[in-house]
Amino acid sequence: MINYSATYTDQYQLTMSQVYFLKGHKDTHVIFDYFFRNLPFNSGYAVFAGLEDLLETLETLKFDQFDLDFLREKGFHPDFTHFLKDYRFKGTIYSSREGDLVFPTRPILQVEGNIIEAQIIETLLLNILNFQTLIATKSSRMRQAAGSKRLIDFGLRRAQGAAGYYASRAAFIGGVDATSNMRTGRDYDIPLSGTMAHSYIETYDNEFEAFMDFAEVHPDNCILLVDTYDTLKSGIPNAIRVAKKMELQGKKINGIRLDSGDLAYLSKASRKMLDEAGLDYVKISVSNQLDEHIIKSLQDQHAPIDAFGVGTNLVTGHPDAALDGVYKLACANDKPRIKLSENVSKITLPHRKQVFRMSDDEGKFAGCDAITLDSEQDIKMMYHPIYPHKFLSLEKFHKEPLLEKVMENGIRLTKSQSLSEIARYSNEQIQKLPEEYKRFDFPHLYKVGLSHNLLKEREKLITKYRK
Amino acid sequence: MINYSATYTDQYQLTMSQVYFLKGHKDTHVIFDYFFRNLPFNSGYAVFAGLEDLLETLETLKFDQFDLDFLREKGFHPDFTHFLKDYRFKGTIYSSREGDLVFPTRPILQVEGNIIEAQIIETLLLNILNFQTLIATKSSRMRQAAGSKRLIDFGLRRAQGAAGYYASRAAFIGGVDATSNMRTGRDYDIPLSGTMAHSYIETYDNEFEAFMDFAEVHPDNCILLVDTYDTLKSGIPNAIRVAKKMELQGKKINGIRLDSGDLAYLSKASRKMLDEAGLDYVKISVSNQLDEHIIKSLQDQHAPIDAFGVGTNLVTGHPDAALDGVYKLACANDKPRIKLSENVSKITLPHRKQVFRMSDDEGKFAGCDAITLDSEQDIKMMYHPIYPHKFLSLEKFHKEPLLEKVMENGIRLTKSQSLSEIARYSNEQIQKLPEEYKRFDFPHLYKVGLSHNLLKEREKLITKYRK
Repeated sequence: MINYSATYTDQYQLTMSQVYFLKGHKDTHVIFDYFFRNLPFNSGYAVFAGLEDLLETLETLKFDQFDLDFLREKGFHPDFTHFLKDYRFKGTIYSSREGDLVFPTRPILQVEGNIIEAQIIETLLLNILNFQTLIATKSSRMRQAAGSKRLIDFGLRRAQGAAGYYASRAAFIGGVDATSNMRTGRDYDIPLSGTMAHSYIETYDNEFEAFMDFAEVHPDNCILLVDTYDTLKSGIPNAIRVAKKMELQGKKINGIRLDSGDLAYLSKASRKMLDEAGLDYVKISVSNQLDEHIIKSLQDQHAPIDAFGVGTNLVTGHPDAALDGVYKLACANDKPRIKLSENVSKITLPHRKQVFRMSDDEGKFAGCDAITLDSEQDIKMMYHPIYPHKFLSLEKFHKEPLLEKVMENGIRLTKSQSLSEIARYSNEQIQKLPEEYKRFDFPHLYKVGLSHNLLKEREKLITKYRK
Repeated sequence: MINYSATYTDQYQLTMSQVYFLKGHKDTHVIFDYFFRNLPFNSGYAVFAGLEDLLETLETLKFDQFDLDFLREKGFHPDFTHFLKDYRFKGTIYSSREGDLVFPTRPILQVEGNIIEAQIIETLLLNILNFQTLIATKSSRMRQAAGSKRLIDFGLRRAQGAAGYYASRAAFIGGVDATSNMRTGRDYDIPLSGTMAHSYIETYDNEFEAFMDFAEVHPDNCILLVDTYDTLKSGIPNAIRVAKKMELQGKKINGIRLDSGDLAYLSKASRKMLDEAGLDYVKISVSNQLDEHIIKSLQDQHAPIDAFGVGTNLVTGHPDAALDGVYKLACANDKPRIKLSENVSKITLPHRKQVFRMSDDEGKFAGCDAITLDSEQDIKMMYHPIYPHKFLSLEKFHKEPLLEKVMENGIRLTKSQSLSEIARYSNEQIQKLPEEYKRFDFPHLYKVGLSHNLLKEREKLITKYRK
């Protein structure tokens, strides 16, 4: 839906690139790491999303004529804009699989190429991956809370403008069952959901007539919104009348929806009224500013709810509006690079790297990922990145390398995956993560450590630059 | 940049519309109000933004063939999809001016048309206006804190995906001077900003050489990032050497940028070093997770900062990721409509309405807007919407009607405004708002009241529906 062009970037990517170009550094070969430093939502894990969209965009990214004219007008050098005319991303990308679980500080994706192509895509890459990973993570948490109940994305109207389009995609990876967002549903083949708003009922002179018209037109997708006037005195009794009328035609309405008031109380009272009317098949959906904590509370209260509709808090990732993903230089011209910082945890990791995930004999995740130099074949110990006297033996674990080459010289190596394949894969991974990493309060810390070789390399560079 | 089509909507807009169509209600004439209930950020005001984008989108909105095929496939009735083939928005819109200050509960915009056209655009309208108003408001608060200092949007990488495109537009309305976002800058003619990242310096073997190359290529746009290795021991001394070298060529670098550490301390120390080197013209920019409160704190500490670069907190509207704007039915078939709620503040206002803003003799806003029936020419008193025994005489004020017809039968009546015109208008309005509404802590409450006639009409409907 979005018409990206290569000016979907920060100006500094181009001012830097112009220096590289005019000063003869345009062929500097570099490696950048994409990673984040902090998990959002106090979550014990995050769900990586956005890779397919990124790769697809990179395959066709270029400066169009309008861009080039604009750059000239802004004073960029004609030799440089001439060079940009033929710009295409011809780099190589190593990445975790979309939908995989990811953790702070470890590379999720690495970009290898010349400095100009790698720099120009930085903004786009962060913009796509940070947001979709944030929302897939939020969605996954809501899925944890909802258990096997139905979970539906209603967020488009409250999404951050055009972000809503991709929010619905990412939410599906994280575990929602359906979306109200028709455009994203259309483009990514996501099941759709939605029946009626309050305004629909208000345009009629009475609620029963509004319900009845809807049931007749949509007998197979009939969820009646019961709180326009008075849920228990008007909405539910009218829904019961409609259900009974439809039964005479051999039809069954699907359910009712509660969108205000105390959802625990109202769902129980509604369930009782429906059951007493012999309508135990009529399902109860709820909505109204839900998040994972409210869903969990409703579940803990045994509210007889069959489906949760989630909006604002899902599609905006409230209260953490952004994942703090960064894109840091690890290598330039085959020399390892580092960014120092007063804050030790912000010092970057040099070299091209690999990440291994540890599993036990049952295939469950052991709760640790180890970052190694790319050349290391086996790793026996991993070290805490800041306190290296803390270490962990990895001998007993099964080790799986996580970074796979997905694009080479600008061409995709892996075949494009459908959204439902990605969602299925993500769900399989979350099943392998032990429960204590998934709880909402003080989740168990998933450890990310460094190999001894990587640690030594980092120390060497710190010493060099501190001099 | 976004290719909207009419399926950029929630499914329920179409399931409802299908009922209207098949049950013979498609010509039901309706009026919807757009308003929000709560100010974000504990702000004393909000800045309305997004109108131009909305109107432009509505002028061309339609279901394309792909949409229509998709709807058929999803089971929508062939007569209905045939009808949608010719769907165009032919309604009428009354709106506040883009960039104006807006307050809770009062209509900001009204849509009048047939029920189907008015319903289909709801999601799109909320999606565009809620987000841009949120960000323009955040930006305006940052502008209040920054005073006359330069304020720059660096947010694209941390924006919610494609939201970043419109965030930069809205931020400019609210008062930023420039953006790093080239694409939005190109499309909306916003001044651009941006020089170098840490990676640029890291690709060089030494910082001085990196600075020098940059200064030679960009002598007129040279802001050196000084915190890659050590701000005061390496970055500033190297920046001074470069500035001195450039002076020999008759050039002056623009400034330095601090992106980590204690910005108050480092800006003071840097200023001192630069001044002692005779470089009082070299400006100091800062960035790193700034928001309006941190900017205010830096100002209160008299940090010698010339420019603030703002990112995540600006473009995501952190910590309030969404404006709670809603779209509520006020009239159907010339009969006033209302939505009741247990929560009195959520009861809607019936009828087509006008909003008047009160000003004093000096042209300063008096701190109150009055909502009236559209037919009322003059209003002498306004009443508290929930506690009508609280009222206010409006006799002494100048009254300006705020809702203007901007689109009629789907055609724009007002000429399209440039972004800089909108930003200028917004700035004029904010100058008229007394300081106590602009402060961050417990801002003075801007009052929104109802005319006596509107109050009576609402009471009548509440009584009717409660029966």
